[in-house]
Amino acid sequence: MQDIYAYIDQNRDRFLAELFLLLRQPSVSAQSQGVADCAELLKRQMDDIGIPARVLPTAGNPVVYGELKCDGANRTVLIYGHYDVQPADPIELWNSPPFEPTIRDGRIYGRGTGDNKGQFFAHLKAVEAIVKVRRTLPVNMKFLFEGEEEISSRNLKGFIESNRALLSADCCYCSDGGMHYGDQPTIVCGVRGILYVEVCATGANRDVHSGNLGAYVPKPAWRLVHFLNTLLDEKGGVRVKGFYDAVLPPNDVEREAIAKIPFDTQILKNLGVSEEPRPGEPPFPERVMFHPTMNICGLTGGYGGPGMKTIVPHVAKAKIDMRLVVNQDPDDIFKKFTAHAREHGFGDLTIEKLGEFYPSRTPITHPLGKAAAEAVRKGFGREPLFVPCMGGSDPDYLFTTVLGIPRVNVPYAPHDENNHAPNENIKLEGFFRGIKTTAAFLYEAAKL
Amino acid sequence: MQDIYAYIDQNRDRFLAELFLLLRQPSVSAQSQGVADCAELLKRQMDDIGIPARVLPTAGNPVVYGELKCDGANRTVLIYGHYDVQPADPIELWNSPPFEPTIRDGRIYGRGTGDNKGQFFAHLKAVEAIVKVRRTLPVNMKFLFEGEEEISSRNLKGFIESNRALLSADCCYCSDGGMHYGDQPTIVCGVRGILYVEVCATGANRDVHSGNLGAYVPKPAWRLVHFLNTLLDEKGGVRVKGFYDAVLPPNDVEREAIAKIPFDTQILKNLGVSEEPRPGEPPFPERVMFHPTMNICGLTGGYGGPGMKTIVPHVAKAKIDMRLVVNQDPDDIFKKFTAHAREHGFGDLTIEKLGEFYPSRTPITHPLGKAAAEAVRKGFGREPLFVPCMGGSDPDYLFTTVLGIPRVNVPYAPHDENNHAPNENIKLEGFFRGIKTTAAFLYEAAKL
Repeated sequence: MQDIYAYIDQNRDRFLAELFLLLRQPSVSAQSQGVADCAELLKRQMDDIGIPARVLPTAGNPVVYGELKCDGANRTVLIYGHYDVQPADPIELWNSPPFEPTIRDGRIYGRGTGDNKGQFFAHLKAVEAIVKVRRTLPVNMKFLFEGEEEISSRNLKGFIESNRALLSADCCYCSDGGMHYGDQPTIVCGVRGILYVEVCATGANRDVHSGNLGAYVPKPAWRLVHFLNTLLDEKGGVRVKGFYDAVLPPNDVEREAIAKIPFDTQILKNLGVSEEPRPGEPPFPERVMFHPTMNICGLTGGYGGPGMKTIVPHVAKAKIDMRLVVNQDPDDIFKKFTAHAREHGFGDLTIEKLGEFYPSRTPITHPLGKAAAEAVRKGFGREPLFVPCMGGSDPDYLFTTVLGIPRVNVPYAPHDENNHAPNENIKLEGFFRGIKTTAAFLYEAAKL
Repeated sequence: MQDIYAYIDQNRDRFLAELFLLLRQPSVSAQSQGVADCAELLKRQMDDIGIPARVLPTAGNPVVYGELKCDGANRTVLIYGHYDVQPADPIELWNSPPFEPTIRDGRIYGRGTGDNKGQFFAHLKAVEAIVKVRRTLPVNMKFLFEGEEEISSRNLKGFIESNRALLSADCCYCSDGGMHYGDQPTIVCGVRGILYVEVCATGANRDVHSGNLGAYVPKPAWRLVHFLNTLLDEKGGVRVKGFYDAVLPPNDVEREAIAKIPFDTQILKNLGVSEEPRPGEPPFPERVMFHPTMNICGLTGGYGGPGMKTIVPHVAKAKIDMRLVVNQDPDDIFKKFTAHAREHGFGDLTIEKLGEFYPSRTPITHPLGKAAAEAVRKGFGREPLFVPCMGGSDPDYLFTTVLGIPRVNVPYAPHDENNHAPNENIKLEGFFRGIKTTAAFLYEAAKL
């Protein structure tokens, strides 16, 4: 790989400049900001590398798709990534503008650096390096970059189901999320699923003066509070009937893998918290991978500005995400959630499903994982950690279940990438070693 | 009064133009927007009328104070009003800009039209009319316009206690809030008190990805929900121990007055609600005047924008107002509220008092009320309704308790003035008849 790695080392500045172009282009799917422009920019950047790319429509934001064939190759690798990003707010907490990538202390800061532009761009640059140095790839390649991952990939399922032949491949490779704490390179073999709902309570047709008119109107903020309070028990367990029914505990191989995952308490210190597991509680890795959760992502109603405003809000809303594990089914959980509301007397609330992903896993003993591990040894010069499942969610199941191919996720972003938060970042080292890892992986994949 | 009333009728356009100048000047005390500029503008407008005025400092926003003596008068009337206004948001629900007064269908729309610039400005124009037409007033007058009523008059108490001699008077007259439904002129003899608190739950030092890091951090939004849920019982009664202890039921005279207050169900229709009292429940007027409440004015935490954002918010807040009745003491209720939090295991939450007013009443049989009623008959040509207490809150107790003088509040704004809400307004007719009422009141007050 030395010839390829030398090319990568010689082109660091240009690779960064090209990545920065992509990072400067906002593409906030939740707010429909710059998404189409970003798709076009990415297509041009792929074309420039020599990957013929197309911007393909979906019912929502477009997919950027590209293909590069290799004469005589037996294997096809499908690369997955997403060019959309999370909203930048709370913007006042960023140390540099979210859409002006800035290098500080060996890291690139900016929205999308880690999640996910900076990571999938490494794959593209790996392909460029191989083609420039060796003229040809060791495998056939397909590239699928979607623009709706941050809004639950709501149209990717339809796109994949309609394009099975186009997307047929032997395996899927992607880099998303962060490495393990201490930035040990990581092979992630699965994801938790997610069900995202918005619960809305309404009252009068407008906010009213709480003194003069308060007696006359319903109180949706109280209504919402009383409903939310029914959802969890005193220990934080979910009280929705049947919520845990389908949950599978880790198997022996997974338990063994979990036991090998080190826990660095520095992560807690960095977050300013001291919530170490109490005796009898499962270790953090098991909680993150194998336990479902119900979390309030947002609470809104009435006045949230400085000082006092004395109103009865006429609307109150909660955004809730439920992280689901194998074999929970988000459609089933949604039915149970709405049934819970009805049975507890809250049938007047509106409950809207904003998005969902099924949970998904590729067995950690799969040969694809071994190929990725060998690539990591070459690219990062370190032994990778096998993680059966990450805490986050992505459309893994579309590959493992709908396309029926195994997938591994090899993150190039650091554990503290601050994805979905202010000061999102990727280390320069992670980006360049990521390019080398992808290059090595393609040669390993050819042997599968 | 015909000479004075003729002057008022002849100067309608100029009076409006002058009022509009005042309305165009933002003065949002909660957001410190334009308050000092508004005080200076008001002082100039009083000087122009011939009321020597001063902008007097307080620990917060200044008071605008003016005096006009009348040789040989035995009585002194203190006029109270406030030149600060509520925040304009949600700004998108206004039909015309909040700080650009606009006349539609016989009403002036804009922030402060009813609450309170448009109402106290009527007093100033009444004084102008009397002085221009009759050369001299029938009473000595003092004017106290504060800039912090919408943030609980937090420095008015200190100002009044330090300026007892300056403010000494026989009675206090003001116009704030709205008339009774159907816009029957109203004599309001008291107010509910208020205690406004902000409850804050905190977790990590930043919002984190709910999938990857959610397991490691506290969940302040849930914590807040669970605390709020302890505050009310199933019927909406306040569960804070001792909350109702000091509440006095209406006396016989008050019950008689309440029974005379008509209830127009149109008010419910206008609000889009159908919450009529059920059998056994007290009538609306009693609820508004004699029952304390606990209301959520605002709920905030995490992401409230469109679509999905998957975070564990690190802060969640609730703004709560409690409307209090005679003899509840906001300081005492605050102690009980914080004790409730501690006793229910929520000592980790921050509870901040943002403002308070004591409840206050002037007996509805007081001669001051009779004088006001006679003025209303002249100014509005209608019989007024006596209201023992309004649902809202203002610093009434500073006059009745601290200065020890009776006060009546004679609203010139319509019942649907939308105070504290979008499309705040006052009727043109209410403004001009209000000027006439104030003029008549000053002659009635001279006879007290």
